[in-house]
Amino acid sequence: MENKNITLGVFGFGCVGQGLHNVLNLTERIDARIKTICIKHPEKPRTLDTKFFTTDRNAILNDPEIDVVVELIDDADAAFEIVKTALSNGKAVVSANKKMIAEHMEELYDLQLKYKTSFLYEGSCCASIPIIRNLEEYYDNDLLNSVEGIFNGSTNFILDKIFEEKLSFDVALKQAQDLGFAETDPKLDIEAFDPKFKLCIILLHAFGLFIKPEDVYNFGIHRLNDFDINYANEKNFKIKLVARCKKVNNKIVAYVLPQFVDSKNKLRDVNKEYNGIVLESVFSESQFFVGKGAGSNPTGSAVLSDISALTYNYKYEYKKLNQRVKYSYHSEEELRIYLRYKNIEEVDFNDFNRIEQRFESDNENYIIGTINLQKIIAADWLKKNDVNIISLN
Amino acid sequence: MENKNITLGVFGFGCVGQGLHNVLNLTERIDARIKTICIKHPEKPRTLDTKFFTTDRNAILNDPEIDVVVELIDDADAAFEIVKTALSNGKAVVSANKKMIAEHMEELYDLQLKYKTSFLYEGSCCASIPIIRNLEEYYDNDLLNSVEGIFNGSTNFILDKIFEEKLSFDVALKQAQDLGFAETDPKLDIEAFDPKFKLCIILLHAFGLFIKPEDVYNFGIHRLNDFDINYANEKNFKIKLVARCKKVNNKIVAYVLPQFVDSKNKLRDVNKEYNGIVLESVFSESQFFVGKGAGSNPTGSAVLSDISALTYNYKYEYKKLNQRVKYSYHSEEELRIYLRYKNIEEVDFNDFNRIEQRFESDNENYIIGTINLQKIIAADWLKKNDVNIISLN
Repeated sequence: MENKNITLGVFGFGCVGQGLHNVLNLTERIDARIKTICIKHPEKPRTLDTKFFTTDRNAILNDPEIDVVVELIDDADAAFEIVKTALSNGKAVVSANKKMIAEHMEELYDLQLKYKTSFLYEGSCCASIPIIRNLEEYYDNDLLNSVEGIFNGSTNFILDKIFEEKLSFDVALKQAQDLGFAETDPKLDIEAFDPKFKLCIILLHAFGLFIKPEDVYNFGIHRLNDFDINYANEKNFKIKLVARCKKVNNKIVAYVLPQFVDSKNKLRDVNKEYNGIVLESVFSESQFFVGKGAGSNPTGSAVLSDISALTYNYKYEYKKLNQRVKYSYHSEEELRIYLRYKNIEEVDFNDFNRIEQRFESDNENYIIGTINLQKIIAADWLKKNDVNIISLN
Repeated sequence: MENKNITLGVFGFGCVGQGLHNVLNLTERIDARIKTICIKHPEKPRTLDTKFFTTDRNAILNDPEIDVVVELIDDADAAFEIVKTALSNGKAVVSANKKMIAEHMEELYDLQLKYKTSFLYEGSCCASIPIIRNLEEYYDNDLLNSVEGIFNGSTNFILDKIFEEKLSFDVALKQAQDLGFAETDPKLDIEAFDPKFKLCIILLHAFGLFIKPEDVYNFGIHRLNDFDINYANEKNFKIKLVARCKKVNNKIVAYVLPQFVDSKNKLRDVNKEYNGIVLESVFSESQFFVGKGAGSNPTGSAVLSDISALTYNYKYEYKKLNQRVKYSYHSEEELRIYLRYKNIEEVDFNDFNRIEQRFESDNENYIIGTINLQKIIAADWLKKNDVNIISLN
């Protein structure tokens, strides 16, 4: 496999774009250079000579000299149009846009097949943890049982501040935003859409399933209150926002939920804005990867690694799409959860299979019981602002 | 890349070999079958039909039907002869034999080039942590600064028992041996030869250097006594056996030493027989991988992953051997160490650059100071049984 020179066209020149440019200048090993950068706001002051910049996407998409398009913009819809065109024009693409990828996974896969071009997106999933590369290359058999982890650095940072420094939720959120750890729309982090998009991407590479984001349940930390935090502290739990997909008898279930984690759980000590992933497989038991999941440097390093792989014509094989045993996707998982509520009329307790514990008081109440995920998905009672759920398993 | 069927010849049928056979039966995804197994002791009862077994190595090495040789024997010299012949006969090879590989790295590389065959050995380094694959594929640029970690499960198990369960060294060692966590010759673990062999392999894939084992300094936990353990406990340290290689200004240093680790060190919570690796790079800061480093299942999973990769004609690229900037290897690192001794005449304190602390008592004495690694390598005083060193940085 020869090392070839590649010419890059970059969309977006924010933190990640600038970081990428810096590191490409630092490394001698990678034969890649940025030729053109397409940006939206030409009036913004830039750290590079204006000759690099354009506002015309076709200056990159139609330039035969450009081999690889690097897509680093926010707008998922615009990103998809750019990526679609680039692949159709025979250019390889590197992206870190989890929302765009999760929403268009099957179409992007078809485009790669049709135009025989490579689309790499390590930066879309837990940034500097090379999870996609590992799922493709090392876990390319069918013995993987589960992948779970902390996929969102912003909410982990907030939870860490709440539990380690005893900050309130609002103060912790503001600190996260000030440090640039939160998405432009914090709801994507706080309500667990961001980790869900990443989980969809992982479902494809771990189990060969195309699952649309709307078919993966996500519930975030937006309802967390002091009562929940006190409960956790009393029981010596921390609370982490955990994305999980697992296989039982060739059936796959996936969801994102806040979870009480005890001292035996590896994810407990994943701190600040770090991400952590635990993989369990039949043979090698468990592996645990930790790395920074957000920020310009960690994301940039993942983008850099993909660019480097393209100098060797690397492509995802999506081997699990072609395995003989197809897995089916379902939501019939029984979960053990803590449900905290104010008014007894708010909740339909019949949804629960079994209630193990019940606590009632003047202010807050909770139950702990087992409930089918499908009931949680359908629950109207979960729409009420003074109801919260946290997983216990 | 097509998925091809491969026919395996296996040398050795101990724990790893049997585990591999079991898992090949479990997975539908990997088109590989074991045709012949070469063993040394035909009289041993086996779990398989005798038709699979032979004592004649040429029954595998000269069989044109066999594509891939899997080498899973203890004897490093015999293993090298087998691997050399297999590669020369155009067969791909999978091995987990760190001693053999570390001692013959350059020759094995030359054989791969000459005969254009693939030699994979993920199982040789920290078993189920895919470190070699990651160094080859994800960290294939020159921005890696350091790789360090706990590479030996047996000594980590022992140290864990000492610090968590307050067992004595001898009792902990016996437990490790009873559980099968120690090498046949425990000296390889206890005196840190085993992690050194792994470090040599990592030096090749991380920094493109062929370093012979005799040129990497190793000092193990064989001198650990109660005084050292009490000191650690008083200072809220644990003791871990840490292998490290790092780059400063294009110069690489590598060594294995016991180290005091505080609560900020990620390696502190790597428990029992687990291995842990911390990678620091310019761009993505640090990543941390944890997994079981020994035992038939974890090693077998690494072997399985290599076999699977061979169905896609995977080869190590050894990209770092061909980079423009060559690194040099040296031992001029200044270390900060704790040196515990009984008699003042035993130690040459002139070897130290600076002594920061000195403790003396009727029984044991220690100093803490800075010393050049070259001085440690040359130190006669370190040969004395009542002298111990533990690194502090």
